Amino acid sequence: MNVHRQIVALDVGGTAIKAVIIGDDGEIQSRHHFDTHRENGPDAVVATVLRVVDELITITRGEARGVGLAVPGLVDEIDGIGIFSENIGWVDIPFRELVEQRTGLAVGFGHDVRTGGLAEKGAGAGLAAANMLFMPIGTGISGAMFIDSQLNRNMYAGEIGHLDVGSGESCMCGSAGCLETIASGPAIARRFQRVTGIQVAGAREVFDRLQAGDAAAAAVWDDAIKALASALVTYTTLVAPDLIVVGGGLSNAGAALIDPLRGRLHERLTWQQKPRLERAEYGVYSAAFGAGILAAEALEQRTLTHQPIPPLSASSS
Amino acid sequence: MNVHRQIVALDVGGTAIKAVIIGDDGEIQSRHHFDTHRENGPDAVVATVLRVVDELITITRGEARGVGLAVPGLVDEIDGIGIFSENIGWVDIPFRELVEQRTGLAVGFGHDVRTGGLAEKGAGAGLAAANMLFMPIGTGISGAMFIDSQLNRNMYAGEIGHLDVGSGESCMCGSAGCLETIASGPAIARRFQRVTGIQVAGAREVFDRLQAGDAAAAAVWDDAIKALASALVTYTTLVAPDLIVVGGGLSNAGAALIDPLRGRLHERLTWQQKPRLERAEYGVYSAAFGAGILAAEALEQRTLTHQPIPPLSASSS
Repeated sequence: MNVHRQIVALDVGGTAIKAVIIGDDGEIQSRHHFDTHRENGPDAVVATVLRVVDELITITRGEARGVGLAVPGLVDEIDGIGIFSENIGWVDIPFRELVEQRTGLAVGFGHDVRTGGLAEKGAGAGLAAANMLFMPIGTGISGAMFIDSQLNRNMYAGEIGHLDVGSGESCMCGSAGCLETIASGPAIARRFQRVTGIQVAGAREVFDRLQAGDAAAAAVWDDAIKALASALVTYTTLVAPDLIVVGGGLSNAGAALIDPLRGRLHERLTWQQKPRLERAEYGVYSAAFGAGILAAEALEQRTLTHQPIPPLSASSS
Repeated sequence: MNVHRQIVALDVGGTAIKAVIIGDDGEIQSRHHFDTHRENGPDAVVATVLRVVDELITITRGEARGVGLAVPGLVDEIDGIGIFSENIGWVDIPFRELVEQRTGLAVGFGHDVRTGGLAEKGAGAGLAAANMLFMPIGTGISGAMFIDSQLNRNMYAGEIGHLDVGSGESCMCGSAGCLETIASGPAIARRFQRVTGIQVAGAREVFDRLQAGDAAAAAVWDDAIKALASALVTYTTLVAPDLIVVGGGLSNAGAALIDPLRGRLHERLTWQQKPRLERAEYGVYSAAFGAGILAAEALEQRTLTHQPIPPLSASSS
């Protein structure tokens, strides 16, 4: 029976598609990475997404029964549409319909940050928290807000990466001083390069240099943490979370990110309740896993409404 | 029948108790002001509240059937307790029980800002808005947040008055730069006095001087509006409201507050959706009217559960 409930789920990012295969027990069985190749344009990315879905189903030997898909940007979760991604460039892609037609399987579809929040809230670090912020830090910085255990589904909400933290740098969004200009992965790499003249591939390399004792890397890292703490003071003052879960690529830094960030946040809060601050349990796979949860719900719904389940061959074609 | 459904409702502020009498048609029949006399200490204020309840019931000729009460600070709306008010100094006052025992009537009890939000959302400026911020500006500045039409009841949330807007002034809360240090009523009066050396009774007097063409008053007023816009940019970036309703004493300034604040907010938003910004329909009576709505609900509940309604004499004793 187990294999009949397998779910494949993917999260389309600016550089990589992160994917998981989830077993009947709800546990992740395997993790996968694919290049997004956004340099080939939005249509090519959509084609890549569908090809990755095929590949994942092939890995399950055609036994997958649901597909989860998380995408960035403005997302219409009701109608299953990727409205706009600045990062990738697509406009009005009917993802849910495309994947349903392609696979005949139950499809769960959502916004990457909100599905990541669902994963951490429902099965990860946030199980016991009623008021939770899930904040992935990667190419961008954004937030999924839970208030009284309800996810805020307003597609314009949660843009913590565009709070003005006084960086003084202008942002792609049209404003200046945004958190993303100082604490996102690319910003950390860019600021290190500007100070040292040394080319680095990304924040990962800055972090490695920090670990090796590089003072310039430490200063850039510290600026990022200060700015993150400042934005989280604002969030705490307005929304009073019990728990802040930090995810995305930067959370791979582990305690070197989480501990000083928690310390600085708690130090700066005066009368406010001090929220717990933890690393995302699913790391960079939060969004993919959350899409898998939505797929499991769609599968449950399909079973309840007695919709025919297509023959196995349909899913590996 | 009409008179049998009258409700009296009051909102306990730092300087004044604002009260309304609401008829069976849900309309405000009369408005009343009483001094809080907080200089006499918290016990005296609690006694004053109960005496005001008596007086209001007397005004209805003992025909009131419900009492609404809104109080500031930390409030436990479930158990009906005023946990703490920094402004007035009380600790753990069981207000709902006190008023029920005193009057025998159905009692609605809530936090002043949240009940104000309920009034504006349910019967005022916010009827059509799913995502709304109600922001009263008075002695302090705070917010009631509605997300997908649900009021955020987290008693620590909504403290927009303590966002750091860079005023540089230290705040009672232990932080510095808070919106309240530049845009609350007392802050506007204090800043005008500091610049001009002229003693003023409050923000009202600064506003009157502004209307008369005083340049110093105009500069202080403009600083307050800039700071309010800055905090509302932050709120909009994080929570994406459709509508912001400005209430409290400062909203008595009307278009001289609302129009430039709306203009500056919209000017500073780039990619964000621009929320509507309006003046509270119930002005300084929003919180009292909202407490009245809670009282009507409590009365409805009592009627449904067939609790005995006490004789008329009980309510005017």
